Amino acid sequence: MATTPKWIMVGGDGPESYNQNSSYQRALLEAAREKKSEAIKAKLSLDLISDRFSVADFGCASGPNTFVAVQNIIDAVEDKYRKETGQNPAENIEFQVLFNDFTINDFNTLFQSLPAGRRYYSAGVPGSFFERVLPKESFHIGVINYAFHFTSKIPKGITDRDSPSWNRDMHCTGFNKAVKKAYLDQYSADAKILLDARADELVPGGLMLLFGSCLRDGVKMSETSKGIVLDAVGASLNDLAQQGVIEQDKVDSFSTPLYFAEESELKQIIEENGRFTLEAFENIIHAKGEFTLDPKVLAVSCRASFGTFLSQHFGEQVFTKVFDLIEAKLRQELPRLLNAKPGMQYLIVLRKKN
Amino acid sequence: MATTPKWIMVGGDGPESYNQNSSYQRALLEAAREKKSEAIKAKLSLDLISDRFSVADFGCASGPNTFVAVQNIIDAVEDKYRKETGQNPAENIEFQVLFNDFTINDFNTLFQSLPAGRRYYSAGVPGSFFERVLPKESFHIGVINYAFHFTSKIPKGITDRDSPSWNRDMHCTGFNKAVKKAYLDQYSADAKILLDARADELVPGGLMLLFGSCLRDGVKMSETSKGIVLDAVGASLNDLAQQGVIEQDKVDSFSTPLYFAEESELKQIIEENGRFTLEAFENIIHAKGEFTLDPKVLAVSCRASFGTFLSQHFGEQVFTKVFDLIEAKLRQELPRLLNAKPGMQYLIVLRKKN
Repeated sequence: MATTPKWIMVGGDGPESYNQNSSYQRALLEAAREKKSEAIKAKLSLDLISDRFSVADFGCASGPNTFVAVQNIIDAVEDKYRKETGQNPAENIEFQVLFNDFTINDFNTLFQSLPAGRRYYSAGVPGSFFERVLPKESFHIGVINYAFHFTSKIPKGITDRDSPSWNRDMHCTGFNKAVKKAYLDQYSADAKILLDARADELVPGGLMLLFGSCLRDGVKMSETSKGIVLDAVGASLNDLAQQGVIEQDKVDSFSTPLYFAEESELKQIIEENGRFTLEAFENIIHAKGEFTLDPKVLAVSCRASFGTFLSQHFGEQVFTKVFDLIEAKLRQELPRLLNAKPGMQYLIVLRKKN
Repeated sequence: MATTPKWIMVGGDGPESYNQNSSYQRALLEAAREKKSEAIKAKLSLDLISDRFSVADFGCASGPNTFVAVQNIIDAVEDKYRKETGQNPAENIEFQVLFNDFTINDFNTLFQSLPAGRRYYSAGVPGSFFERVLPKESFHIGVINYAFHFTSKIPKGITDRDSPSWNRDMHCTGFNKAVKKAYLDQYSADAKILLDARADELVPGGLMLLFGSCLRDGVKMSETSKGIVLDAVGASLNDLAQQGVIEQDKVDSFSTPLYFAEESELKQIIEENGRFTLEAFENIIHAKGEFTLDPKVLAVSCRASFGTFLSQHFGEQVFTKVFDLIEAKLRQELPRLLNAKPGMQYLIVLRKKN
């Protein structure tokens, strides 16, 4: 991990922060809320809900979505406990929330924006979720919200012009077979390490709720609206290279540690890992439609998510110029965006084998 | 707590940071190391050392002393386990360290300076140690390093000119009986709340190691070198008021949430709380002598400890001016410093009753 730039969200709560620009993900979380409650009701064993119950959010960023997500889970656990035991959870259960993200995540902002009146103890857990970050059997329900599409590093060969898997694009568009294979291999290896780490850290019978984006089988990333947005970022970088603002080499060597897997690939990874039973693979329908198509909103939201990562590679100034171009670029791409193939928002429910 | 300024150390690792100016406390920690190892060896029950062992540091600041302190404890636990079971702790025990301090502590710096090669999982726990911050039975050994002399707020009446316990000085010098009583009452109440919270959070039989400064019975704070330094800060503030740089009212209403108790007062608080047995009350001898007497070193160290607290009340500019005066002030006080009555550095070992 040490040599790979870390994907962290823009911290603080200024106008360009992830904190202020995560409304799309937030709407998705709301849409997934009911599904998560149902999963907890149906799949969590009542005897796991005892005097101390820990929830962990892996890749929590600096807020505020993580607070909504963990509160939904706590509400569902309390609800189940109240209905099935007839007792008051507030009297019998102490909740703890473990907020995990990279060591360089803005934990100061996270801690200072913890909701008033929360009924749980909080702890920040620094470290990459591709490694063990907690002692064994530390938590009862873990969530990964919109972060299960990261790889731990850029796959081998992707940025090497002499490699058969050299990638001219800044992400895995799905159109180049060697590139797709390199990304899938890296992603599979990483996802299995991640699942192994969580299996060690979870109590037996505990749940992992993976909530995020994937591709329908056979659909290529650049055929979806998310892929088109990534293509627009890449095109903006190339424009700047042609204008002489940045070196073409610098653009060619830029890649993102992202892989949106196909549904069947995800299922295969989980099965091959073998530490969990796959309890559910739900398709979440977004209340706002799959993706907002307002170029202005897209550009700002893109900036909040990509900003830190881009400026690590290109520097602060280039990063500003890139995002000045993106809104116009997305406006040009509106016809493609309107005709994009649908992506898929999933809620995967995993249960740790005993 | 909401209305009381919080005593936090200067964050980051710049030349004025606590991180760079805590060598005195560090030397003390080294001196206490052997005593702590002995206490763990003698007082920690072997059956508490199992597959998962948690150490908590309450009032950890942003480093680096906390790393030395918790490593000493882990070394001692491993050593005990190795000697008494003949087994390798690295194969059988997973350690976790819980770093606690105020929510506004600089946890980002803390996390980013975690020692490489550490053999423990880390978590940051935000919140005042005068409240519950962890679920029940969360840890096995807790430490409070050099922070058991804080009160949760300025005692009632201290800053009110019309009150019988109005304090002309910025700390409890020990010479005014009403002031001393107000501080002791507040301190006793706070310390009991703190001990209750830790007793809830500790596993039965778990240890609290309190390491800090107190007064020998009958000695007044301003007769000791620490008290003389605090008097010098107060005198510098008064000089600035007389020069018209700050308002006298602002100086008169300034007080510190500090109370260095007498040895017998500490023992009485612990006994009255009743949740712990007092296993040891050790006098630690500092390798460098009780207190450095170099005015330059004292001024810089004072700045790192007091800086944030002072600037919350007076603003950044005044704070700089105060500390410009202190070195000269301490030079004048050198004869008093040389003849100061000795203070006392203690290691208190408490064991949670079953």
